[in-house]
Amino acid sequence: MIIESTRNETVKRAKSLANRKGRLESGLHFIEGERLVREAVVSGVEFHDAFIEEGHDLMVAVLQGSGAHVHVVSRSVIRSLTNTNEPQWVCATVKTPLYELPRYYPDGLIVVLDCVQDPGNIGSILRSADAFGVSGIVLGNGCADPFAPKPVRASMGSVYHVPLWFADVTEELTKLKNQGFSLVCGHLDGEEVFPEVSGKMALIIGNEGNGVDDGVADMCIKYRLPMYGFAESLNASVAAGILIYETATKMHNLI
Amino acid sequence: MIIESTRNETVKRAKSLANRKGRLESGLHFIEGERLVREAVVSGVEFHDAFIEEGHDLMVAVLQGSGAHVHVVSRSVIRSLTNTNEPQWVCATVKTPLYELPRYYPDGLIVVLDCVQDPGNIGSILRSADAFGVSGIVLGNGCADPFAPKPVRASMGSVYHVPLWFADVTEELTKLKNQGFSLVCGHLDGEEVFPEVSGKMALIIGNEGNGVDDGVADMCIKYRLPMYGFAESLNASVAAGILIYETATKMHNLI
Repeated sequence: MIIESTRNETVKRAKSLANRKGRLESGLHFIEGERLVREAVVSGVEFHDAFIEEGHDLMVAVLQGSGAHVHVVSRSVIRSLTNTNEPQWVCATVKTPLYELPRYYPDGLIVVLDCVQDPGNIGSILRSADAFGVSGIVLGNGCADPFAPKPVRASMGSVYHVPLWFADVTEELTKLKNQGFSLVCGHLDGEEVFPEVSGKMALIIGNEGNGVDDGVADMCIKYRLPMYGFAESLNASVAAGILIYETATKMHNLI
Repeated sequence: MIIESTRNETVKRAKSLANRKGRLESGLHFIEGERLVREAVVSGVEFHDAFIEEGHDLMVAVLQGSGAHVHVVSRSVIRSLTNTNEPQWVCATVKTPLYELPRYYPDGLIVVLDCVQDPGNIGSILRSADAFGVSGIVLGNGCADPFAPKPVRASMGSVYHVPLWFADVTEELTKLKNQGFSLVCGHLDGEEVFPEVSGKMALIIGNEGNGVDDGVADMCIKYRLPMYGFAESLNASVAAGILIYETATKMHNLI
């Protein structure tokens, strides 16, 4: 049976995941597009409902194997569920991965996000962190929710590859310091020379407009990206991407 | 006299700059927001019309000094002119800077964009190129127009700081090679070791989905950004930002 009404109960439940409240209450989030859905399947994410546009019968068995109740729906239902201008033929609700805050942080590079508020930036930073092999990401209380539809899309599936820990930034930085991590933040008042590199580094990324909070910056070694031109600053995801790249590459060259 | 009609001729002419045709015919483009308008003034850009919301009389003399006919308009006219959700109190039409294609390229880093199609990416890449002090940017025929409203905004004024040359990519790469430039492109088939650095480098950035064109890539040294994680690729502006940063920093360390 094809669902044609946008007021169908299952459709309405999926739509409620556009809001943080809906996501928190259900423990689910919403994904759309073939690439992201495949990425979720491959990453072993548990599916809840999957919506396939009538006329497409790809992936039904795969989705069912991932736990999905598969619903065939009309194009108008796909349109009402999704958030892009030209939505593809598939979308789904899936279980939000939960990672317990580690008592001891794993070695390697930990990225700490302090009040990163733009959903697109959150997604793009997760993607960069994933690409450069970080051990995990701490998201402070003031950050945008990475499981909202836009950051999940912008992350291109990276939300499923890297542990995401929701926590208080100051507490976790204290813990990281006590466990032997060097804390580094990008800061306009910093030195233009990259700090000494070790196998345990934490990189703190601050708010788009205001940068890293003063109290947080005081716990860190401040590093200023050397710039030679006229622009005062970089796009926030670009700046974060460069910092993650530089730190990861320097750490990798230690090995 | 306050302009209150969105069908006013001056307002309609400003709106026509949303289209490439309107920009080409007039030699003008449209900018909005106090920061960008100030940046244009500081950069010595020639103004045509400036629109100020009634009740704001900041900057009138400055704008007139930059050649603007200043019009006081209602909030609804500001809304109809601008492209953001919460427009500020000022916008303007300004002369598009024209740079003659150089017979001999200046030393330093030249960034060459080959079919970069997303307006936001174009703006963000110009901003990164500006921050890291490139000597100029070649925009191939397949690129989005950097003087459309969105890239101008995303560039944060960098369109006024760096020479922008519109040209055929293959022809310019041949010229750059003949003039002693090393041509480097980011490429998945490249080596993960950064090529030899000199004082004359050209960095080629390809299309968001397909990367650098095969014919173009064959003219270049291919370099693959070392990645250690799961994500297959980076956001296009982040990847370009990292490549520009890495090249500029290595060139700067030569000095």
